[in-house]
Order: sequence, then structure tokens, then C-alpha cells
Amino acid sequence: MGEPAVVLLSGGLDSATVAAIAARDGFDIHALSFRYGQRHALELDAAAKVAAHVGAVEHRIVDMDLRAFGGSALTADIPVPKGRLVDELDDIPVTYVPARNTIFLSFALALAEVVRSSDVFIGVNALDYSGYPDCRPEFIAAFEVMARLATKAGVEGTQHLCIRAPLLELSKADIIRTGTALGVDFAMTLSCYDPSDIGAACASCDACLLRARGFADAGIADPTRYAGEGS
Amino acid sequence: MGEPAVVLLSGGLDSATVAAIAARDGFDIHALSFRYGQRHALELDAAAKVAAHVGAVEHRIVDMDLRAFGGSALTADIPVPKGRLVDELDDIPVTYVPARNTIFLSFALALAEVVRSSDVFIGVNALDYSGYPDCRPEFIAAFEVMARLATKAGVEGTQHLCIRAPLLELSKADIIRTGTALGVDFAMTLSCYDPSDIGAACASCDACLLRARGFADAGIADPTRYAGEGS
Repeated sequence: MGEPAVVLLSGGLDSATVAAIAARDGFDIHALSFRYGQRHALELDAAAKVAAHVGAVEHRIVDMDLRAFGGSALTADIPVPKGRLVDELDDIPVTYVPARNTIFLSFALALAEVVRSSDVFIGVNALDYSGYPDCRPEFIAAFEVMARLATKAGVEGTQHLCIRAPLLELSKADIIRTGTALGVDFAMTLSCYDPSDIGAACASCDACLLRARGFADAGIADPTRYAGEGS
Repeated sequence: MGEPAVVLLSGGLDSATVAAIAARDGFDIHALSFRYGQRHALELDAAAKVAAHVGAVEHRIVDMDLRAFGGSALTADIPVPKGRLVDELDDIPVTYVPARNTIFLSFALALAEVVRSSDVFIGVNALDYSGYPDCRPEFIAAFEVMARLATKAGVEGTQHLCIRAPLLELSKADIIRTGTALGVDFAMTLSCYDPSDIGAACASCDACLLRARGFADAGIADPTRYAGEGS
């Protein structure tokens, strides 16, 4: 048995790679996902497949309703932007969910304390981060400082929390290369913000465009199933 | 209309006083409570009464299930400690809920962004804090630093988040004096960790003992309805 680690698992390409890194490093993986009113709830099925694939000791799904807060195309009745040029993705898009990573990391902190873990893995990425403020290195560092003051285990000295964001400085192509080298089956993962009912990707939202460019840049065949393709 | 503020409202004595302070200071109050699997769900009825009493513009209740994380007498099948001497309450008790204030403040941060607020009020208290690590000033300060890096509004410069914890350095007696001066009706509030079905306080859990001593020290009549008293 390795040390326990909490791995935030969205079902996307990035968090699947992070889970594979945590497994490679010998951690016992406690996978954590959220059902938060997202349009693309199929990603939870993808997360479950990834958790099984990396041999997670458990996969918990927390229910909460971020739709109560409104304000995002990922949860509210605002259209997901389509067909934007990848190089235009520097503004914070309407798919931003208020304080989402803060909330997710807070639950991860709670689970870390319960399973006596000092390590929380998250697949944030500062380069291809689509302009989300809570994917920046300075945010992750500040969360870690706060988290070390927040728990009973931290105060008692049995937990020294580390927020591990191993993709922070990687390009999407580097993430895909890393995951491929670790045996990640990216066909299991779902990045699309607006998939079809059977989980086929739209090919034109920001997440699809970044993902497709990543496979192209990495020179690795894209296993994504796109809507309209033969099955 | 004043500036909007998010006020975390538990239904207890402390957060009722904080709400009255926010109202006195001219804020438009967006009250926020949580249904998190607590034993004492009657506190949500108390929170609703307090929200109405201070003229809140809205009162949102977020559902989530912290029982999935286990580990606390407030949510799990662990007995609530009774009859401890108040001066013995320096250890972190079994009523501690892992990372609870971190989670609550994270949701408050999300709501603050949605309602375009820079102010989040929370009734934490470092003196009578029953040993909870996430009630300490250094925790609140670190959360504020993190929160300023976490949101789109913060990055764009339209939000400069302040975590306002006006009770941080007050004794329970001072809190009761402050609330009384501001017209808080403490009979509306519920502090007990283990109330009866009709909301009568047990008189012997840590929260009841601290509350009763606070009224005694303040020299103010205790309006709390205790179990076993005539109605």
C-alpha cells in the first residue's frame, strides 16, 4: 500500500493524466468527482472509467447544485461558444463557473483529512487554461497556504497538505504525450463542454478545439469520438 | 440600496449578530445557509427567521452531503459530547466537521461573484471557538488572500474580496451584548448541537454550555428554550 492521495477527477484528458501520474508515483488513489449541475454529466461516466483504469481504491461523487449560483454556460442556460479560434481563447469565457476550483479543492481538503492524506492532485493547467483565474499557479499556491491552516490534522501536525498540480506548466501536447507514455487510454475521457447524448464530442467548443490541437501538436492519433462520425 | 454582501447564516447566535452588524453597516444582505446532513437541521428554520428579521434581500440554501465524508459528531453516528466543563473545551472536539468553514466560504465566494459583492461576513470567533482550526484569524486571513486570486471578478478588478469576521476577537458575552444592542432577538436562534424535535436546546452540549455562560457573563436574561421546560 502506498500513501493515500485525493485525485480530483473530471473525466477529461487532463485529470486522467494526473491520475496516471499519481498511480505511477505509488499513491493509493481516492478519486473525487462532482455532480454540480453540469451540462456534460456524461463526464462522470468517463471519470468512473478512468478511476477503475488507474486502480483507484475508491471513487466518491459529491452532489451539489452550482446552478443555484448561475452565471456559467457550463451550468446555466447560456449557449456554449463554438468555433472560436484557439489563439483567441485568452479572455475568460462564459464557461467559467464562479469559484469552481476553490469549491472542488475545499471538498478535496475535507476528504484528504478523512482518509489521512497530505496530497491532493488537480489537473489545472496554466498554459491552455482558457483564461480561468483559478487555474493559475498563484491561486494554487495561495490555496495550499490556506489549506495548511484549515484542518484539525494540519493543526495537530499529522497532515502537511500539498496541492499537486503536475500539469501546471505543460502544453496540451505535453500532457497528451505524458499520459500516453503512462498508458492512459484517452478514448475513455470526455473533454467536450457540449457532448451528444451518447458522449460524442461536438468538435467545436473551446475544450474540443484545445484537445484536437493538442493531439495534432503531439503527433498522436486522436481517439476522440466526434458527433456525426460512424460508430 | 447599499452594497451587496454575502452573510453566512447558520441560525446560531453568532451569525445572527453578524447579520445584524452587516445590516447596521448598510449592506444589502444575501444570506447563505447549507443543508449538509447536520443533525440539527432545525437551525435552517432559525436561519430563515434571522434572514427575515434583518431584512435580507434573499436567503439561499445550498444542498450538499458532508455525511459522505464522515468523521464528525455533527453529521455522523457519533454521540454529541455532553456536560463537559466549559474551561475544558480547548481540544478540537468530535463535533469538528472536516474543512467545513473552507467549504462554506468557498460557496460564499461563488455567490459573492454572482451578486457582484466584495464582502463576505462570517461569524467565526477565536476566543470561544471550541478549538476549531478554521475559526482562527490566520485561517481567515489566508482564505482572503486565496479568494482574491480565485475569481474572474477579482482578476478583472471589479471585486476586491474582504472576509469580514467582526466577532473574531469578541467573547461570547461581548457578542451577546453587541447583538442585543442591535436588536437581535436571540430567541429566534438555535445554537444547540442536539436539539429536540421542536427545537428545544439540550442544555449540556458544548454549544449550549458556551451560550449559557455567555448570557450569564453578559448579565442578560437567556431567552433560550431548553428541553423539559414548560412552553
